[in-house]
Amino acid sequence: MRIFVIMENVKNKKPLIFLTNDDGVDAKGLNCIIESVRELGQIVVIAPERPHSGMAHAITMYSPLYLRTVRKEPDLEIYACSGTPVDCVKMAYDHLLAGRIPDLTISGINHGSNSAISILYSGTMGAAIEASFYNVPSIGLSMLDHHADADFTAAVEYSRIIIDKVMNGNLQMPLCLNVNIPAVPADEIRGIMVCRQNQGFWREEFVSRQDPRGKDYFWLTGDFYNTEPDATDTDEWALANNYVSIVPVQVDMTNHRQVKELAPLFESPVK
Amino acid sequence: MRIFVIMENVKNKKPLIFLTNDDGVDAKGLNCIIESVRELGQIVVIAPERPHSGMAHAITMYSPLYLRTVRKEPDLEIYACSGTPVDCVKMAYDHLLAGRIPDLTISGINHGSNSAISILYSGTMGAAIEASFYNVPSIGLSMLDHHADADFTAAVEYSRIIIDKVMNGNLQMPLCLNVNIPAVPADEIRGIMVCRQNQGFWREEFVSRQDPRGKDYFWLTGDFYNTEPDATDTDEWALANNYVSIVPVQVDMTNHRQVKELAPLFESPVK
Repeated sequence: MRIFVIMENVKNKKPLIFLTNDDGVDAKGLNCIIESVRELGQIVVIAPERPHSGMAHAITMYSPLYLRTVRKEPDLEIYACSGTPVDCVKMAYDHLLAGRIPDLTISGINHGSNSAISILYSGTMGAAIEASFYNVPSIGLSMLDHHADADFTAAVEYSRIIIDKVMNGNLQMPLCLNVNIPAVPADEIRGIMVCRQNQGFWREEFVSRQDPRGKDYFWLTGDFYNTEPDATDTDEWALANNYVSIVPVQVDMTNHRQVKELAPLFESPVK
Repeated sequence: MRIFVIMENVKNKKPLIFLTNDDGVDAKGLNCIIESVRELGQIVVIAPERPHSGMAHAITMYSPLYLRTVRKEPDLEIYACSGTPVDCVKMAYDHLLAGRIPDLTISGINHGSNSAISILYSGTMGAAIEASFYNVPSIGLSMLDHHADADFTAAVEYSRIIIDKVMNGNLQMPLCLNVNIPAVPADEIRGIMVCRQNQGFWREEFVSRQDPRGKDYFWLTGDFYNTEPDATDTDEWALANNYVSIVPVQVDMTNHRQVKELAPLFESPVK
């Protein structure tokens, strides 16, 4: 027992990697990337108990959070949290790991794309962005196949290339990367592109049905409209052309141009 | 009946204002602003059935949505939706109003602040941002008092000044404003400031308790850290000095500087 404790302390010098996702603790994408990065150091995972796709940057305000131990082995701890992906990150950084600062946060690998404006709706990217607030590099990983049994072979291979570069790159903080990986075999991927977020948007088509009690209900089903399909510097272009896309993320939502433009209108005497 | 139909058609020339919030359809802040803007035209409201604070840009993916008619009068329709604030906006623009384009979207008045990075967690601002994707001016309104019975007198007065300027201003789209209003009487408000989002962040302190079955649970309780208290051009400074803050919002999360910096690292031959 004592030896084990001492070994644990020595092991604390290894890199500490925190992982989460939004598809839930059992999702294949998360477990594929856990297996891949285990060799890199100490791994701590807190992921949602249940799928939380589309949960964006949501936090749980009206109910308390539970944390369940899923698996605990030397250098690997996996917990399930009753809350959202962002709750998982806060739970890790402000509670479970208190005092131990991870070297990297990984969110994903998500089942499905989080490119373009989908970054705003994405629980995967909500978690990655939240983690970057702790001055630790943070990578959101998504693969363009939402099926539960998707093949993550190429996604893991390219994720590892990016993870290794971030861990060894001594990069400037804050660092938050939105990585999307085409759903094709590795030998069809043409490379990695660092690019900007495409400016397209979603429009919904509500599928209307009636429940057995005669009440209408609606399923939200959307289509993405790429408003700049010819721009070759966006994540949508990269993915459509079989490149892995990396969008470095920032969180200043200010439209600085409009600050200047609108000041004269609103700041004139108001009464 | 026929006369009523004809009058309805004539009335369609009036401005159409869509409102939503994240505190729920019964919240005082929403109902105060509805009463204030009724005189401006046709009012359509879809707000969440229940409080959805902290729901950010979340959408409902795993269950269908219900829409309940709360109130229907000439020029005023209020509906409750089972989903999130962003669901309410999509339900309005892509379903209920299909074909009728509102002249303005108002989200709020929220009970509590949505300044600085809180914009990312805010259901109020999630809805306001979503609405701006429809090329309609959109205003998120928040007042710095989260109590259910807060006094919205000053908040309504200043909200109306801003709403009237937006409706008459012929402003360039997209336009999404994050408006926060100090919780003081109107005569203590010093004016309106158009400013940028403060760069501070939240840290959580988890309050731990035990449920009656002996399981630990955690309440998320955070504090905001203002990392630039002396910067006089931020929303936090404006609010601390009794100004109404307006941050014009954009949704490009790309860190453009890092796109250039990181390209050489990641785009080098990968195999």
